[in-house]
Amino acid sequence: MITLSSDFGSPYPAAMKGVVCQRTDARLVDIAHDFPRQDVRTAAFWLREVLPYFPPAVHLVVVDPGVGTDRDAIVVRAGGHALVGPDNGVLLPAARVLAGSTAAGVSGTAQGGALEVFRVREGSREASQTADPGSDWPPSPGSSTFHGRDVFAPVAARVHTLGVDAFPADRGFEPLETWESLRFPSASVEGDSATGEVLVVDGFGNVITNVPGAHVRGRFGSAMQVNGEAVPVREAYATVDPGVGIVTVGSHGNVELAVNRGRGDDHFDLEPGSTVRLAW
Amino acid sequence: MITLSSDFGSPYPAAMKGVVCQRTDARLVDIAHDFPRQDVRTAAFWLREVLPYFPPAVHLVVVDPGVGTDRDAIVVRAGGHALVGPDNGVLLPAARVLAGSTAAGVSGTAQGGALEVFRVREGSREASQTADPGSDWPPSPGSSTFHGRDVFAPVAARVHTLGVDAFPADRGFEPLETWESLRFPSASVEGDSATGEVLVVDGFGNVITNVPGAHVRGRFGSAMQVNGEAVPVREAYATVDPGVGIVTVGSHGNVELAVNRGRGDDHFDLEPGSTVRLAW
Amino acid sequence: MITLSSDFGSPYPAAMKGVVCQRTDARLVDIAHDFPRQDVRTAAFWLREVLPYFPPAVHLVVVDPGVGTDRDAIVVRAGGHALVGPDNGVLLPAARVLAGSTAAGVSGTAQGGALEVFRVREGSREASQTADPGSDWPPSPGSSTFHGRDVFAPVAARVHTLGVDAFPADRGFEPLETWESLRFPSASVEGDSATGEVLVVDGFGNVITNVPGAHVRGRFGSAMQVNGEAVPVREAYATVDPGVGIVTVGSHGNVELAVNRGRGDDHFDLEPGSTVRLAW
Repeated sequence: MITLSSDFGSPYPAAMKGVVCQRTDARLVDIAHDFPRQDVRTAAFWLREVLPYFPPAVHLVVVDPGVGTDRDAIVVRAGGHALVGPDNGVLLPAARVLAGSTAAGVSGTAQGGALEVFRVREGSREASQTADPGSDWPPSPGSSTFHGRDVFAPVAARVHTLGVDAFPADRGFEPLETWESLRFPSASVEGDSATGEVLVVDGFGNVITNVPGAHVRGRFGSAMQVNGEAVPVREAYATVDPGVGIVTVGSHGNVELAVNRGRGDDHFDLEPGSTVRLAW
Repeated sequence: MITLSSDFGSPYPAAMKGVVCQRTDARLVDIAHDFPRQDVRTAAFWLREVLPYFPPAVHLVVVDPGVGTDRDAIVVRAGGHALVGPDNGVLLPAARVLAGSTAAGVSGTAQGGALEVFRVREGSREASQTADPGSDWPPSPGSSTFHGRDVFAPVAARVHTLGVDAFPADRGFEPLETWESLRFPSASVEGDSATGEVLVVDGFGNVITNVPGAHVRGRFGSAMQVNGEAVPVREAYATVDPGVGIVTVGSHGNVELAVNRGRGDDHFDLEPGSTVRLAW
Repeated sequence: MITLSSDFGSPYPAAMKGVVCQRTDARLVDIAHDFPRQDVRTAAFWLREVLPYFPPAVHLVVVDPGVGTDRDAIVVRAGGHALVGPDNGVLLPAARVLAGSTAAGVSGTAQGGALEVFRVREGSREASQTADPGSDWPPSPGSSTFHGRDVFAPVAARVHTLGVDAFPADRGFEPLETWESLRFPSASVEGDSATGEVLVVDGFGNVITNVPGAHVRGRFGSAMQVNGEAVPVREAYATVDPGVGIVTVGSHGNVELAVNRGRGDDHFDLEPGSTVRLAW
């Protein structure tokens, strides 16, 4: 199985699918192609939340503002999965969860199991412009603006064909000692309060913070201060009237600020990066 | 085959796909994940129009404003298909068409073939937090905000694995006598006029009413009053100049108000729930 | 494999998928369903850029402002592929590339290999309204507003089942001598300048022109006049500061006007059809 993720919108992901289908019969599953454009951090968050629910697979990820520069194309091997994408940190949070013994989808607790990173060697530009597009390996950046199609998709197909356990033996891959990392900030908890930040806002307008849900889970039915406003703490959205804001624990395991049948970001006036102070 | 429908946008549906792929190799087909958020009625309309075109399958449907409350998770068995989702009515209009001898896609004429509804028994929360996510059955609501991932997707995979004919024998399912229904209102037709309402507006702006197309089909080429305005009755959009409004029969078999290369909802100033009075 | 492309948005493409799945187990791959509505030319451009990356397949394409009128449904056979859609030109640019020896994705250089066009014979409306929807062949336009579901999807399934080489022997297909064409305008190049036009703007805001990239490729690192403004010529977006506009060669092989981490269409005040004059 090869999953596909990008910030490409449409129809560029289809070109990647074509390239993959030229090279392998792997099953394809789309994760998302509407990640905010060139927003490595938000894509990294969602991949960390979603990929651990998949069986071992090759995950092709292209959120790549540095396309065409000298940033490497890498493959990260973790927990039987392989993640293929640019060396800009986007793969790392998901890879840490996949590598660790972390319960799937529970944020912030990856315990750092084995994780290996490989650089993809590149073929020459000249080779790619004359060769059969099905045979070029290592891949050559035929374009300098669409490595999803010209580099990452061939790599994902190659890793899938060789197998996650076997691919590093191929001449096209070289172990790396260092790579770009990306970590989400931790909330600080002191006594009866926590100060954290908004990591992302989902499509419903639910505000996802970095405060661990454990601080809230025992308090369902009570209220809590959110940036100075008293807000009910509830286990489910529909336990309050439409339009009422709540503190809850989201499906990611973190504290989430939401509105029953409404948007939490508007109600609480919060956006990614905003500071959230909770007091109970 | 398992089809997937939701109001989740992106990337939450991918987590459901991962959960399903952990449990079965079933083919996955997306119906839509951009149903208007928490709009059970509109989702129910579109599912009724689309699902009858599929061969027998398991249909996973999550439009679920009551997630985390005590509404049941149900499976509806109808005409060789199984529909999995919340007990809020969203599955029923499609299930009636699938159960009946109704011609696929023709609205409003389901004749009530056999239709069986089963409640999904739930496992305990504690079990789900420690168990291998691939083995928990009956499913436990690991979260109270994302039952699509934590309850409905495991149920859909289970029904697919056991088979639509066999699944009710599993301990996780219990026959129900009553469930939430949902029916679309009928238009009233009297003499040479009909009064109905707008059921939905599609992405082109075509206004889909509940007036049966039979009242219009014999009148192509003539004109008709629509809320007091004379409007040409035509069989196809491009039979009038761009920007001109028409009365036609949509692909759902109902009267549709449309504009050639334009939006019918803007032209006729109509939205879902609006009253439409036709006179011929 | 059957690929699907349309301007339908959601959920209409799912009805086409159901119809196809009723008739064949072919693998389905979505190209895009958000082509600008009724914009035959833009869809034709993207199909030309994307389909050549696929292995031989049946390509179902429905951008069809003339649905329900007397325009034919056609199948174009080219280079081992079959393209199914309306006779309005939308299939032709991609078909020419597939038929020719053109390097995949390089624009404007199709060399006109063999390309055959067949008209789809239609069954009678009466047959379609009574028949088992899985058995009607040739297809009948059950609706006059959704031939994607009622005509083109059954045709694509039929072509896939018979095979791209064999389908023309079926009674439902008739060779055509003439059909609607569609060609993109060529840029005019004279001395040290080129005058072309904007073909499309992609989702990133990148402005894709019809000027061949060859005129720019040797000039990376220098600057060029774009409609009188001096603009750096660069091989990759991230070689300039965020917000700075560049001239580059896009993944399609043509000159592209872009902004690092911004929108080229806003920066250069260009839209599809705008004139672009480059001087170097």
